Amino acid sequence: MKYPNGVKKNNPDSKTLNKSASFARRGMSLETRINEANEYYLVHGIANIHKKPTPITIVDVDYQSRQTARIKEAYFVKASTTDYNGIYKGKYVDFDAKQTQNKKAMPLTIVHQHQIDHLRSVVQMGGIAFLVVEFSSLDEAYVLSAKNLLKFWDAAKKNDGPKSIPYEHFLNNETLINSKILPVFDYLSSIGSLLDE
Amino acid sequence: MKYPNGVKKNNPDSKTLNKSASFARRGMSLETRINEANEYYLVHGIANIHKKPTPITIVDVDYQSRQTARIKEAYFVKASTTDYNGIYKGKYVDFDAKQTQNKKAMPLTIVHQHQIDHLRSVVQMGGIAFLVVEFSSLDEAYVLSAKNLLKFWDAAKKNDGPKSIPYEHFLNNETLINSKILPVFDYLSSIGSLLDE
Repeated sequence: MKYPNGVKKNNPDSKTLNKSASFARRGMSLETRINEANEYYLVHGIANIHKKPTPITIVDVDYQSRQTARIKEAYFVKASTTDYNGIYKGKYVDFDAKQTQNKKAMPLTIVHQHQIDHLRSVVQMGGIAFLVVEFSSLDEAYVLSAKNLLKFWDAAKKNDGPKSIPYEHFLNNETLINSKILPVFDYLSSIGSLLDE
Repeated sequence: MKYPNGVKKNNPDSKTLNKSASFARRGMSLETRINEANEYYLVHGIANIHKKPTPITIVDVDYQSRQTARIKEAYFVKASTTDYNGIYKGKYVDFDAKQTQNKKAMPLTIVHQHQIDHLRSVVQMGGIAFLVVEFSSLDEAYVLSAKNLLKFWDAAKKNDGPKSIPYEHFLNNETLINSKILPVFDYLSSIGSLLDE
């Protein structure tokens, strides 16, 4: 496990901080915590990262009042990208968020082919691409670099590797997302090694 | 008017090309042309830029069949960003598309405060930010740098400048979007000077 930037410097009493942060996280979905972090990053001029709206196709809208136009019929459309992107330290950042209850590995089935294709394209174009992976039962989340994800994915497709990424891989090679007071879910502090590549 | 990158080199017979391109553009909305260009850029590994879905809040969904989940009630939500973003030449790119029928100026009223705030933030963070502005009646479109847009916006807010950006400003200072065969609407060829900044 790599430690996020500045974890020791900023958290002299990290046990206490992690406790309160863990308390603050209770009941907050992963998406809510990421959105909250993004709001913090934006307000403080650290990063400008947003979740993309759910793609839908609208069939029927009731325009009776312009202020309250009501969509009466619409359908979900398959996404072609990941859910989050934006700018951090002048660089293009792109990621998706994944959760698993599994304590021993992240099953590759929770990642979709279009997300793999998109992340691969972003990597090729020089962007910072990753997954935020939460092991819910362990109350731990990691930044999984897209490059490592793609290695596991490609090996599995060739029947040359496991169909999941072992928890040990995260422990030994990826960066933990530290729980702080503000923002509670400071995932950008965990992508430092990706920025340096 | 600045000419887009490579316009002379690639288009020896630019009159003919512009004619056919103009033909191809007929009936295609600005959004359609940008989306088509983005598809071309993606397929050819040039850039990975997408239009964000329209933000909505979903109230009621009919889940009778999982494949055909039908949204029965939803409402439009105010956007907090621009419509397009992505990566080009390793850089974060962010823009919105605007059209005006006006032949003499682009009224600042077609830009919203939240778009100004977002573009300002992107500029501050070192991203490539701009508007694609189409003068529909003139069949011309320009890349308007966010920095220049912000100058006009801030002056107008201080009652220190016009409430619109004169067409002459575009002609003298911004880059025309060249119409080519493929992609028809090659707007990325017109942001060269922004990349160099």
